[in-house]
Amino acid sequence: MIGEIPKKCKVAQLVEYGKPLEIREVTIPQEVEPNAVLVRNEMAGMCGSDVHQWHGRLGIKAPLPNIPGHETLGRIVKLGEGRTHDCAGDPLKVGDRILWLHVNCGDCYWCRIYRQPHVCPNRIWYAYHCCEEYPHLWGGFAEYSYLLPKTEVVKVPEELSNEEAVGVGCAFRTAVSACERLGGYGVQESVVIQGAGPIALYSLVLAREGGAGKIIVVGAPEKRLALARKWGADHTINIDDVSDAAARRQTILELTQGRGPDVVVEGSGGRTAFREGLEMIRRGGRYVVIGQSSLENTDNIVPGMVTLKHLTIVGNAGALISHFHTALRFIVNKRDKYNFADIISNKYSLEQVNEALAAMESGKEIKAVIVP
Amino acid sequence: MIGEIPKKCKVAQLVEYGKPLEIREVTIPQEVEPNAVLVRNEMAGMCGSDVHQWHGRLGIKAPLPNIPGHETLGRIVKLGEGRTHDCAGDPLKVGDRILWLHVNCGDCYWCRIYRQPHVCPNRIWYAYHCCEEYPHLWGGFAEYSYLLPKTEVVKVPEELSNEEAVGVGCAFRTAVSACERLGGYGVQESVVIQGAGPIALYSLVLAREGGAGKIIVVGAPEKRLALARKWGADHTINIDDVSDAAARRQTILELTQGRGPDVVVEGSGGRTAFREGLEMIRRGGRYVVIGQSSLENTDNIVPGMVTLKHLTIVGNAGALISHFHTALRFIVNKRDKYNFADIISNKYSLEQVNEALAAMESGKEIKAVIVP
Amino acid sequence: MIGEIPKKCKVAQLVEYGKPLEIREVTIPQEVEPNAVLVRNEMAGMCGSDVHQWHGRLGIKAPLPNIPGHETLGRIVKLGEGRTHDCAGDPLKVGDRILWLHVNCGDCYWCRIYRQPHVCPNRIWYAYHCCEEYPHLWGGFAEYSYLLPKTEVVKVPEELSNEEAVGVGCAFRTAVSACERLGGYGVQESVVIQGAGPIALYSLVLAREGGAGKIIVVGAPEKRLALARKWGADHTINIDDVSDAAARRQTILELTQGRGPDVVVEGSGGRTAFREGLEMIRRGGRYVVIGQSSLENTDNIVPGMVTLKHLTIVGNAGALISHFHTALRFIVNKRDKYNFADIISNKYSLEQVNEALAAMESGKEIKAVIVP
Amino acid sequence: MIGEIPKKCKVAQLVEYGKPLEIREVTIPQEVEPNAVLVRNEMAGMCGSDVHQWHGRLGIKAPLPNIPGHETLGRIVKLGEGRTHDCAGDPLKVGDRILWLHVNCGDCYWCRIYRQPHVCPNRIWYAYHCCEEYPHLWGGFAEYSYLLPKTEVVKVPEELSNEEAVGVGCAFRTAVSACERLGGYGVQESVVIQGAGPIALYSLVLAREGGAGKIIVVGAPEKRLALARKWGADHTINIDDVSDAAARRQTILELTQGRGPDVVVEGSGGRTAFREGLEMIRRGGRYVVIGQSSLENTDNIVPGMVTLKHLTIVGNAGALISHFHTALRFIVNKRDKYNFADIISNKYSLEQVNEALAAMESGKEIKAVIVP
Repeated sequence: MIGEIPKKCKVAQLVEYGKPLEIREVTIPQEVEPNAVLVRNEMAGMCGSDVHQWHGRLGIKAPLPNIPGHETLGRIVKLGEGRTHDCAGDPLKVGDRILWLHVNCGDCYWCRIYRQPHVCPNRIWYAYHCCEEYPHLWGGFAEYSYLLPKTEVVKVPEELSNEEAVGVGCAFRTAVSACERLGGYGVQESVVIQGAGPIALYSLVLAREGGAGKIIVVGAPEKRLALARKWGADHTINIDDVSDAAARRQTILELTQGRGPDVVVEGSGGRTAFREGLEMIRRGGRYVVIGQSSLENTDNIVPGMVTLKHLTIVGNAGALISHFHTALRFIVNKRDKYNFADIISNKYSLEQVNEALAAMESGKEIKAVIVP
Repeated sequence: MIGEIPKKCKVAQLVEYGKPLEIREVTIPQEVEPNAVLVRNEMAGMCGSDVHQWHGRLGIKAPLPNIPGHETLGRIVKLGEGRTHDCAGDPLKVGDRILWLHVNCGDCYWCRIYRQPHVCPNRIWYAYHCCEEYPHLWGGFAEYSYLLPKTEVVKVPEELSNEEAVGVGCAFRTAVSACERLGGYGVQESVVIQGAGPIALYSLVLAREGGAGKIIVVGAPEKRLALARKWGADHTINIDDVSDAAARRQTILELTQGRGPDVVVEGSGGRTAFREGLEMIRRGGRYVVIGQSSLENTDNIVPGMVTLKHLTIVGNAGALISHFHTALRFIVNKRDKYNFADIISNKYSLEQVNEALAAMESGKEIKAVIVP
Repeated sequence: MIGEIPKKCKVAQLVEYGKPLEIREVTIPQEVEPNAVLVRNEMAGMCGSDVHQWHGRLGIKAPLPNIPGHETLGRIVKLGEGRTHDCAGDPLKVGDRILWLHVNCGDCYWCRIYRQPHVCPNRIWYAYHCCEEYPHLWGGFAEYSYLLPKTEVVKVPEELSNEEAVGVGCAFRTAVSACERLGGYGVQESVVIQGAGPIALYSLVLAREGGAGKIIVVGAPEKRLALARKWGADHTINIDDVSDAAARRQTILELTQGRGPDVVVEGSGGRTAFREGLEMIRRGGRYVVIGQSSLENTDNIVPGMVTLKHLTIVGNAGALISHFHTALRFIVNKRDKYNFADIISNKYSLEQVNEALAAMESGKEIKAVIVP
Repeated sequence: MIGEIPKKCKVAQLVEYGKPLEIREVTIPQEVEPNAVLVRNEMAGMCGSDVHQWHGRLGIKAPLPNIPGHETLGRIVKLGEGRTHDCAGDPLKVGDRILWLHVNCGDCYWCRIYRQPHVCPNRIWYAYHCCEEYPHLWGGFAEYSYLLPKTEVVKVPEELSNEEAVGVGCAFRTAVSACERLGGYGVQESVVIQGAGPIALYSLVLAREGGAGKIIVVGAPEKRLALARKWGADHTINIDDVSDAAARRQTILELTQGRGPDVVVEGSGGRTAFREGLEMIRRGGRYVVIGQSSLENTDNIVPGMVTLKHLTIVGNAGALISHFHTALRFIVNKRDKYNFADIISNKYSLEQVNEALAAMESGKEIKAVIVP
């Protein structure tokens, strides 16, 4: 069904920060080690951090040259010996569609003793890896991916389209992990979601289906906010229209009986979002911070708010393979209610990758995808 | 035994921010309402926030003129009708020594619906109240206190000296509440305590007796650190000697196998302590913030650390009466091992109150007390 | 609109266990103390525990004679001085409809130190109180109720019908509290709900709207299961049809990929339900036990299952006033989706109270209500 | 340093339930696979479940013939390729002493999705494995052990004696895991520990050092209770002297101000212990159940207590390798205060294994060990 593996394939390489990615050819390994997997990429999501990666300002180091694209859905071309099933025990065969996680070492103090592989310091990152290193096919903006033997993978249920499932590869599984870190929503808690990009929108549906009461989404542009309302936001505040944080806070206070929201979800990555979250949240509230992925951005905050407002703040870094599995089950069970493909606002070919990056940077897209 | 109630008593009033407190006489209510209590103050602790109050830079508003002193131990002079027992059900009688909490309204959204009286917005604050208002005797730097009917009180066990128990009135009960907010210590977790004042020292004994492994105290001056070591700190870092935060962080990393501490307790109120805590804490660690009591101080932090380090941060504001009760039981059960009176480094008369404030500000004292 | 308070009113009294309730007249207090409330009962829900009370086999003692009915919705006739607003700060006036909680003392070790008024040992129980004691009007199966000064009350939003709101008085607020005790539902967790009466049905909607995946309801009769399916149950198992617990367990295993449910909610009060729950739940699962309200029923279980299956089990006793408030907000926000009045399968006059009890005992009703 | 590996070694085999174990010789693998480890057993603890295993009434199946002994400390004889360090990153070499965990599959729904390897259904059990299967050396009552490639191991710190460390292999690491499941102890919580064997005694030191207030140990015989008092129990109740559960409960109520203990730790495995725990625990208390390891024992309980007492009950099955590591750090840091070797009441040679089993069954020992 899949046939011969070509000798080479096209990839989009980041060769110099801020410069256009270059379309190059790299060699495809013809043999796969035990437990490794060769994948024909079908769709690669583009997210805000791809823009950061492009400009070289990501918290995670990405040595040059590299192949961006860390939210990839692909079809199995070749299965290494011993790779017989996915993370949930479903059998795998050539032709199945899968998603995968960066490779946690499974063997360090964080993986074994702390049981927090979320922050494994020995992680091998797909997409953030120099592609001169074997097996070269590290990123999603490419025709093929080669998955290392220890890579955890999850099978994409047959009934889901690529458009519905691709966001699980990064944004949705991260939102699921963050929801777990938060401890879920109390019955009818009021929620503000900062941001209106994919992480924010997936967090919105999780809050909507997870027991929240009033949900307010604060972001831009209107295209994203329209989807937020379609997906159940009770109110949206367009930060392009209401550019003053104090004015936004005032509106939110009015919408929350003068108390402020019970929960704030930071899913924007905005430069001053953390400060704004601390200010708007109610006394005794809970704040989950997902979008702040840069270590270069600093913000001037009032630490006394953490104390005097008696806050609980949790950060979430990435996700585990279980969160992919959960996100997929969520989509399967809720797709009659939400059109998850709505989040894909545009598709680009591999050759259009720079156009896609520019569109993401400009905020024109909700989520762009590369179809390589 | 208590005899006549005098018509008037001496109090120390803060009349103008930053100016010396004035010793004045105010009228003592001769009758107490049902459930109210008239108390002869025996000892009033002085804490860092008294210095902030003096300078008018406290997060909590304290209208002028006021009588500072919010950590007061006193002996019951007169019990209002219906006030028959303390918070734990122990019977109360004239002559008993008690401690008390600020008055939460018990009736607002925070008290009834959120069940977080910690942040009751209608709280009536002792010490932070204009003393021109009846019943005038709002603060501890005075010969008498008048406790409103809804005030929650706890009896001080007979076997404890004033010196052992007075810190329960603010610092110790706050440390107990913060320990609860943190969820306690995992077995053998490593801990850094930022600060070496009373909140930090009480947090130290709670960590020491609460399952922590290595405990490092970071503060000054040497007098406080010596007590920290006596009370079980494995290491102390004197910030006067090691004034560079990066150097402190390096030492802490070395003491924690290069990972950073599992838990950080901010009990210093230091201007840049929050930033330093975020930087030193290990990936996946937990941070409890107690000492940041000013809303005027801002700090420049990297919000991305909350996300990328997958942190859990909890703030703690004040305490509930149950935490007083728990702190007292702790002292009763651990006083063979710790001399809790050690924390009282000096006693001052009411007339010496300005001397005491100056000593606290200079950092010369661990905890000064007023014996009015 | 309210006019004169009559001298007397009709009540249904339980005079002897197991014997028909008697309709009698009792005196209505003409004056209400400060903070007390006189209420004209509009609707009183009947729940399974009323049948237990009738037969004298309730865990809670109910001295004779008493007026059953602890899930009562009424309209304010007279407000004691000082009673100006409800638990959430909404203003109260004569004519408003309210619901109320049994009276926790607010002053014992459980209320003050443990902060678990759920199990206040000094609680004054409405409905489980000898009605020869002043103010006589302790129960809901009566034309009037007299609420003691310390009673916590919540206003019923205008837009809700009595039929929608009455269940909040006991069953729904208990389900909300139990959901909180459970810690909510993880995203897409599978759930079995034992029972199909009001607590079970309200637990079902909380799970449905709170993030659960597949939900299976196990109960009877078909009338209740039909409503369960209408309210979102994915599967129902009729215990009349499948009377063998092992067969039920087998079906549940098949519906949960052979693992068993992630969460079990015991809302049945069934004699062997706890044992069955322990057996069906998956290894590592969570079990919340709400329906077991008798101290006379014993069951033969395998304690080793708690250990070897690594279970988490939480019991829930009653609720706090905050849970009433939350349940009402839930209804307001979800009434477009669920017809909450569906749970009221029949209405009876006060004179028909024995008929209603018989109907509840026979399992013919979902929830019967008395309209006194 | 270790020299030649002998061709064969002595082992104690359970050939028929209830019959004496037989000393036999089995072949030692001369080669070890990558990541496997050959170990010269130095000491094997005997625990209550060995007696259950002997009689064939363990919850876990142990096919015959097998080599009991699942709490084994041994010295590395040969390291498979790739096995370079222990679970905490400490380097391993021939001659190091180690402890190890049963082998969780790492690949099932419990290991990957639920992240609860505690209850991995595919676990390969040491000691509970037919020893006719390669590599034969499955149990601790033998001169050698062969550890499978996926076995997680922890290095025993040099300063610890075998007697101090051997209990970490099962009893202590289980107590650490259970303490974590409980969520630790609140400051000054009162605790009853049911049982006085190794799990109970290790739970006692964890409670003592973990913040508990009064600790009461209920068990037998006096020898164990004497050690409990030495290790910090405030009170002990000898169940041989006070054989009536109601009388024990009365004493415990008196020792806990009539409220009952805040926390109960079931570490006895006693037939009626679970029922007794439910009865004695205070309303709103927390119960951790560790000792109930049989699926054959049933007990008649009142399920209504779970509800009406608003209890939290957690079971704990086994432990993870991180708990071994934590237990060892605990011993290293607390050995000046506790003589952990005290728990080893007797040493037996391999040939004396039946004598040791008889002694354990009779309750004569605290913990017996085999020195093979």
